[in-house]
Amino acid sequence: MGLSKFAEHDRLSIVLVCTRNPLNLGAAARAMSNFGFLNLRAVNPYDVAFREARSAVGAAVVMKNAKEFQSLGDAVGDCSLVVGTTTLRNRERHQPMYRLEEGARRIRKALVSGRVALLFGSEKVGLSNDDLSHCHWLMHIPTREKHPSMNLGQAVAVCLYELIRSGKIKTVSAKPGASGRDLERLTEILVETLRGCGYLGRDASEAKTSKVRRLVRRLRLDGGDAELLLGMLRQIQWKIRDR
Amino acid sequence: MGLSKFAEHDRLSIVLVCTRNPLNLGAAARAMSNFGFLNLRAVNPYDVAFREARSAVGAAVVMKNAKEFQSLGDAVGDCSLVVGTTTLRNRERHQPMYRLEEGARRIRKALVSGRVALLFGSEKVGLSNDDLSHCHWLMHIPTREKHPSMNLGQAVAVCLYELIRSGKIKTVSAKPGASGRDLERLTEILVETLRGCGYLGRDASEAKTSKVRRLVRRLRLDGGDAELLLGMLRQIQWKIRDR
Repeated sequence: MGLSKFAEHDRLSIVLVCTRNPLNLGAAARAMSNFGFLNLRAVNPYDVAFREARSAVGAAVVMKNAKEFQSLGDAVGDCSLVVGTTTLRNRERHQPMYRLEEGARRIRKALVSGRVALLFGSEKVGLSNDDLSHCHWLMHIPTREKHPSMNLGQAVAVCLYELIRSGKIKTVSAKPGASGRDLERLTEILVETLRGCGYLGRDASEAKTSKVRRLVRRLRLDGGDAELLLGMLRQIQWKIRDR
Repeated sequence: MGLSKFAEHDRLSIVLVCTRNPLNLGAAARAMSNFGFLNLRAVNPYDVAFREARSAVGAAVVMKNAKEFQSLGDAVGDCSLVVGTTTLRNRERHQPMYRLEEGARRIRKALVSGRVALLFGSEKVGLSNDDLSHCHWLMHIPTREKHPSMNLGQAVAVCLYELIRSGKIKTVSAKPGASGRDLERLTEILVETLRGCGYLGRDASEAKTSKVRRLVRRLRLDGGDAELLLGMLRQIQWKIRDR
């Protein structure tokens, strides 16, 4: 069975990063409304695009409640699972990649106990490596090798369909994972600490910061452990500064 | 199981009846190309629409081979199964109606031995009762009752995805986890570091050491990440000792 509870639909946010075309924003919103997912978050949409899309056919409720964010970190701050969509090719992959069928299964499982963000990148370039570093894992739609890249609105429709598609419902009560905000705080303090001790240079590249960010996401921490590690790192940092 | 054979993909025709908007025609063609179904048939498309759509992004092959028909009867003349897509509501139904999951299963079965036509109606009114009378049965996408009507291109994408979707979950080969030896080394150096910075007292109880050990195990590290963290901790420790 697909998701049966409104609460679970409500815990999923569709996050559109740097969408350019208002038609695509509107199409994404329409598919969301069709499948009952009403939480749209837009990160740095082209201003005009965002405003024009507010008139999207049949997606008024979704567009009205859409939230705009300046950074992806903010947009996923309250989510304990962040999933990036991408094609199979053209990407140095640093994270696990699942086909949609398996990815949706994992998302449904996570929605039982926490908030989930599902990310879609811009039409031209998709999600950047920096965007991807916020993700716990990646997901791809099983398209044809010769023509893998889907239209944004269609990709959103297909992913959401798979989520509500009737299969078996997993009712596993797991501890909710640490929130995006906690993981990002942990990432920041770890990067600072690694700078403080010389593991990272003062002017460490974004790629190196992204590497640390991905490491933190791979740890699959729950809230309590994130807190525990934060405490440890704070003490370590204090000691390093103190010298 | 999804469709594995090219011949079976080849036996499905997507039939668009009276499509008005060239963007929708192009979007349908793109989704077809994405999922490997290359036979598009258009019944009475608005002339302009049809020609404009020939420039659709990434769907050149589909558009180039698209066939135009004057009547639906002609368009489905060589098909042994004709399936109409429609929403659940607003329709006097005279034929069996299946949800997409079940409909796709029946279509796959039929494709083993014969040609199948999958019909999509115009944006405004969908398939007419006359169109529907050509169908063996009907299929609907399980959309939300309050907003059932999907965009044409998105509906095509979702239906074709369901056709190629794999019922079998791909088992992803995960990296082997870090060895007990690595984890213990990591535990030791973490405990030492936490002593060094005062997070743990010099005479920390065994219970506290055990707490750190359990934490390290919960991280579910693979060998590479364990190595990475060891490197970080060594550097941190060196810095702390150095003071």
